[in-house]
Amino acid sequence: MVKTTLMHVGPSIGDYDVQLAGVCPDQGFASEKFKSAMSEALKGINYVMGCDDSYLPFIIPGSGTIAMESVTTFLQRKDKILVISNGVFGNRWEGIFSRYDVELTILKSHAGYCVSHEDIMGSLNRKHYKMIISTHVETSTGVKFPIEKYAKIFREHCDIIVVDGVASVGGELVKTSEWDIDIYITASQKAIGAPPGAGILVVKKKLFQDYSDENISGYFTNLMNWKPVMETSIEGNGGYFATPPIGVVFSLRNAFARIRDETMEKRVERHKKLSRSLRRGIKSMGLGIVAQEGYESSTVTGVLLKDMDADLFVKNALKFGVEFAVGVHPDLKGKYFRIGHMGWVSREDIFKALNAIYNTMKEHDPKTPMPDMDSFFE
Amino acid sequence: MVKTTLMHVGPSIGDYDVQLAGVCPDQGFASEKFKSAMSEALKGINYVMGCDDSYLPFIIPGSGTIAMESVTTFLQRKDKILVISNGVFGNRWEGIFSRYDVELTILKSHAGYCVSHEDIMGSLNRKHYKMIISTHVETSTGVKFPIEKYAKIFREHCDIIVVDGVASVGGELVKTSEWDIDIYITASQKAIGAPPGAGILVVKKKLFQDYSDENISGYFTNLMNWKPVMETSIEGNGGYFATPPIGVVFSLRNAFARIRDETMEKRVERHKKLSRSLRRGIKSMGLGIVAQEGYESSTVTGVLLKDMDADLFVKNALKFGVEFAVGVHPDLKGKYFRIGHMGWVSREDIFKALNAIYNTMKEHDPKTPMPDMDSFFE
Amino acid sequence: MVKTTLMHVGPSIGDYDVQLAGVCPDQGFASEKFKSAMSEALKGINYVMGCDDSYLPFIIPGSGTIAMESVTTFLQRKDKILVISNGVFGNRWEGIFSRYDVELTILKSHAGYCVSHEDIMGSLNRKHYKMIISTHVETSTGVKFPIEKYAKIFREHCDIIVVDGVASVGGELVKTSEWDIDIYITASQKAIGAPPGAGILVVKKKLFQDYSDENISGYFTNLMNWKPVMETSIEGNGGYFATPPIGVVFSLRNAFARIRDETMEKRVERHKKLSRSLRRGIKSMGLGIVAQEGYESSTVTGVLLKDMDADLFVKNALKFGVEFAVGVHPDLKGKYFRIGHMGWVSREDIFKALNAIYNTMKEHDPKTPMPDMDSFFE
Amino acid sequence: MVKTTLMHVGPSIGDYDVQLAGVCPDQGFASEKFKSAMSEALKGINYVMGCDDSYLPFIIPGSGTIAMESVTTFLQRKDKILVISNGVFGNRWEGIFSRYDVELTILKSHAGYCVSHEDIMGSLNRKHYKMIISTHVETSTGVKFPIEKYAKIFREHCDIIVVDGVASVGGELVKTSEWDIDIYITASQKAIGAPPGAGILVVKKKLFQDYSDENISGYFTNLMNWKPVMETSIEGNGGYFATPPIGVVFSLRNAFARIRDETMEKRVERHKKLSRSLRRGIKSMGLGIVAQEGYESSTVTGVLLKDMDADLFVKNALKFGVEFAVGVHPDLKGKYFRIGHMGWVSREDIFKALNAIYNTMKEHDPKTPMPDMDSFFE
Repeated sequence: MVKTTLMHVGPSIGDYDVQLAGVCPDQGFASEKFKSAMSEALKGINYVMGCDDSYLPFIIPGSGTIAMESVTTFLQRKDKILVISNGVFGNRWEGIFSRYDVELTILKSHAGYCVSHEDIMGSLNRKHYKMIISTHVETSTGVKFPIEKYAKIFREHCDIIVVDGVASVGGELVKTSEWDIDIYITASQKAIGAPPGAGILVVKKKLFQDYSDENISGYFTNLMNWKPVMETSIEGNGGYFATPPIGVVFSLRNAFARIRDETMEKRVERHKKLSRSLRRGIKSMGLGIVAQEGYESSTVTGVLLKDMDADLFVKNALKFGVEFAVGVHPDLKGKYFRIGHMGWVSREDIFKALNAIYNTMKEHDPKTPMPDMDSFFE
Repeated sequence: MVKTTLMHVGPSIGDYDVQLAGVCPDQGFASEKFKSAMSEALKGINYVMGCDDSYLPFIIPGSGTIAMESVTTFLQRKDKILVISNGVFGNRWEGIFSRYDVELTILKSHAGYCVSHEDIMGSLNRKHYKMIISTHVETSTGVKFPIEKYAKIFREHCDIIVVDGVASVGGELVKTSEWDIDIYITASQKAIGAPPGAGILVVKKKLFQDYSDENISGYFTNLMNWKPVMETSIEGNGGYFATPPIGVVFSLRNAFARIRDETMEKRVERHKKLSRSLRRGIKSMGLGIVAQEGYESSTVTGVLLKDMDADLFVKNALKFGVEFAVGVHPDLKGKYFRIGHMGWVSREDIFKALNAIYNTMKEHDPKTPMPDMDSFFE
Repeated sequence: MVKTTLMHVGPSIGDYDVQLAGVCPDQGFASEKFKSAMSEALKGINYVMGCDDSYLPFIIPGSGTIAMESVTTFLQRKDKILVISNGVFGNRWEGIFSRYDVELTILKSHAGYCVSHEDIMGSLNRKHYKMIISTHVETSTGVKFPIEKYAKIFREHCDIIVVDGVASVGGELVKTSEWDIDIYITASQKAIGAPPGAGILVVKKKLFQDYSDENISGYFTNLMNWKPVMETSIEGNGGYFATPPIGVVFSLRNAFARIRDETMEKRVERHKKLSRSLRRGIKSMGLGIVAQEGYESSTVTGVLLKDMDADLFVKNALKFGVEFAVGVHPDLKGKYFRIGHMGWVSREDIFKALNAIYNTMKEHDPKTPMPDMDSFFE
Repeated sequence: MVKTTLMHVGPSIGDYDVQLAGVCPDQGFASEKFKSAMSEALKGINYVMGCDDSYLPFIIPGSGTIAMESVTTFLQRKDKILVISNGVFGNRWEGIFSRYDVELTILKSHAGYCVSHEDIMGSLNRKHYKMIISTHVETSTGVKFPIEKYAKIFREHCDIIVVDGVASVGGELVKTSEWDIDIYITASQKAIGAPPGAGILVVKKKLFQDYSDENISGYFTNLMNWKPVMETSIEGNGGYFATPPIGVVFSLRNAFARIRDETMEKRVERHKKLSRSLRRGIKSMGLGIVAQEGYESSTVTGVLLKDMDADLFVKNALKFGVEFAVGVHPDLKGKYFRIGHMGWVSREDIFKALNAIYNTMKEHDPKTPMPDMDSFFE
């Protein structure tokens, strides 16, 4: 009767009430009910992102990647861009910009590490960038970049600060206004806990003042096409550029309502506490954490196996009721797996994860010690 | 107790069973259950499109527009493109290509008309095009382009034939293989009857033989990024490029299963018959059809009002339980509204639409004659 | 793609929103959420029954029959009971009382007729009864008994007036207080439009003043066991005697909320108008109505076939998307079928019913005339 | 964000997939889909009860109590009945039989204990009974009666052996055929894990051979009325006596399918193991188990508090995400609470229960020791 808990890195730990809110076969994008849901969803984005009224939120049909690519709206040919990449999803910016005529500098780190302060400062001091991009939580390793420390420094070396918060928003502390970030990106299906189907971002409104049609973006990714829709939608008046993922919007509304009930403060605290208990349990079984100490995220944990193949581990763990994700960082190929613990994750889920890891390991090595559970009852 | 029936043009006439199939909070893209659903959904696309094995189907997170823009995968700078546009969504290609360095020829028609045969032949004889694009059913007016007659002619004047079937696939006869179309585009939420959230297309496999990285597409729209995912997914093995709209895929699987139960032959016949009864009823009340005779689609009908404002009409019709869409073609601004009758549309829905139109009109003009219902009982 | 509409006589014409409200795997009978729903459901019963505060509503797990049998709470051995039965469900009282030591007088009518005024007055004048029972709408034929005319007369000839409103409450005018009925019975799944699973009744509170443990009821049917639960539940404080059908209660709450939105006045009007259109359509095809003129209900219609077997008719009608019920009155065995048109029934459903009848008949007799639809557009 | 887990004693630990299967607004009792579900549900009852073909299963709209009362079908006035009651629900038989003219002997135990062997043998040796009734698991205390040891003894002293398995069937080992029980009773919402709304029982077919209309049952509780329906329904042919709880039947079908997937052997083992871990954890925190050692059930656990009021405990535990049930045995009023761990209960639920107990206790007494979790990782 083992029912599988989804602790993949995206989506992860879903919720029936949130998904059932998206069952709406009689709703189009022009109904009052939808317009109201869209307005609340947009306002919810501002809430979880920590944005004041100087930002405009966007819900774009698609996924986080489309939201990432939409930063091209504010770029022109030959613009200088600095990407601080701590893994596979940081490197995704390289894939994106390879399709455009821009001048990209990308700093890369070893798996589990952040790019070093020295490397960052070296690149910053070398030139002024149009855009500096960093990934808040790197989904491929679980490393968290201390964007709150760097935002002020970046400001002096670029025009536009972009943060990819796909794996952080909704679970980590995000203070877009306070940190003065220009564009913060995420997606519906991770720590916000709605179904996949929407790229999400907030953009500082004043960026549009300098908007030029000469920008390098395509059509769907050109935020100028979406801007009037979001402006009228946040006011409850709807709008149309391309058909929105209607069910996902209703689910987002429900998810944000529950996030407000919990408050972002307590939500961030919960993610922090649970991820700490998880790491403690993992280490007590003799396994390693991919992320370097002090840089562990509260939403994704990479776990280093000792002498067991990660594909086999993930496959075997299914028997104990948890779906983990294999590791995808090429440096550690086959050597680690990943745990998503975001959104609606509970203490019981963490317990279930540890139990599944323990039992999967024990099949492989009967001497595996039981995980330390003391922190669970605090 | 009037419950609203959604007869907007997209989405339109939803179904609970299809949507409930998408409630799956414990499913990520790596589960066996999802891989199986994705495989069946992809095969279902081939079925409704009339494709043999020489085509590869794609499900792209987003909407029909992203599928449209993805044809850039097969274009290079300065390529010559001919677009035969019969309305607003035909003109959308102009918006798309305005972002790219291509040489676009666009033929436009009057509202309700197809571009004339003379105009088409004129343009065809002037040069050889890399790509010729037409819209099967123009959502803004309900006009259907006789692509089955033109496909062979286009073949002689271009390399790649693209058809935008966003408003036709699932309701109109589509024979991609037989007509030798290279790329046929649609979306999840129209005549296929699943929720919005996915752009869908089929691509003749041999197009990828000439693929060059020098193409003009962006990153998300570059089908080469999606190709390996679709190739493994259709075999039931899954794959990843960006997070798929998981619930929409489960809904698509369910929708295609029901479409196979009905068979495409009967489905096309049903759409044809119901749309005929609808038009007959409309005309019997003294209203006009936007589409020129002989070019009416089976999925979308534009209705010309006499002396009533379309916005007001659509608003008032809500009282009688039907949500119609206002007209959006600028030539007929305020003068017509649109009816979506696709996917799961039934005889009762058509009856309800006529009843709502009749009662809305009668409030405005008490002498409005009752709609002719004879064809309903055939 | 023909989707079946349920026009059986119970349940009939369901609603997804009402049923989805009953999906509550995390709710027991002690939760605040359930207590609140139970309170609202009980108050809703009073609303649809037209009861003031001198009545106590009951929701009993089971079906209408258990609610019927619970009138034994107010009966003692050898009590005299008069049942006015207009069909199979009136006769059900005979089955019930055959299990108890009471003195039953039952008046029966011919199929489609009410017991005659002469017969009723004859029995009334013969003795004084402890209880007089009549069926508001007889489900087996669709005949409606004019209880509003008889209530005052009954009062002079008995202590307790019971009305079985299983097939009427929620669709017909019911004024329990105004008519001074002592016990009005119904069930969740008919014109109230919730799922089956609950017997429902209202009882004049002062009946409990004369309650004696010497009554003939069993344990589950003894309303004295349920009384304290309903008294605390209506106040929002819950209570327990046997486990309630939790999901059905949540569905009832939702159903009553929508009934209040519509108002009972408009709901009764809607049922009246739609049933009139239905009968007119049926007659125009040359078929007969089982109920005698002037006694037709707004919720159930029995249809007399000419030379076609009713079982075959009902089976064939499924092909045209409607599930009707076969007739069950032994006098007319095989000669008629029944249509349930209650609760969430719409004009479209009536249209669909007529269409299904027409097409089923036409297969049998090609000369069947088309149904008259004029009244539909009023 | 604490989501409440329902660990009340009935219903307890629900499941969305099982409940969503019951959303069926277009299904009446005459549809092929329902008939098939009803047949599978009836066969599922035989499976979980361990019945061969000499038993007939019944699904009766209502609750477990109505199933209990239906044993009157096989009783006549003045019949001698022995009830072995280990608590409040055993005593419920006293309430039931107080309504009938039978000669009842009821043996009662102290809270947490079973009636002693001596007392049972004393009563058995005193006379021959028509019916001997025992409760397999007493919901008010969690005590399990070793019916497997007594069945043979009972056989020598009575005609009909009845077991109330409301709180055991689906979670405890039940071998109706092997133990030669005549009537085994349960309900849908406990260890079977479907929603409440149905009383369930199996009856040895040969009991009907001696059936007499002179029995003491009422109408709804007279199994002879239901027998033909169940006989045709198990064959997939449907039938009607009173409207079945249609959604509950669909849910039961789904629940039984999953029970077969797990197998009853593994299901019983799971309940046994989890309840053992739960009791171990409870004791390690210094709390007591209501049930005497050796008589603990695998489905319900009563927990003795030390110096804390049970009402307050249950209320406070809600803050930690678990809904427990207060104790209802009058001997221990206010001194204990109850935990339902049935049906879909998982290791994580047990962990959550222990965590909630620990934290609730710690608020009250900071020196409460952490629960022993060692057995959890076995």
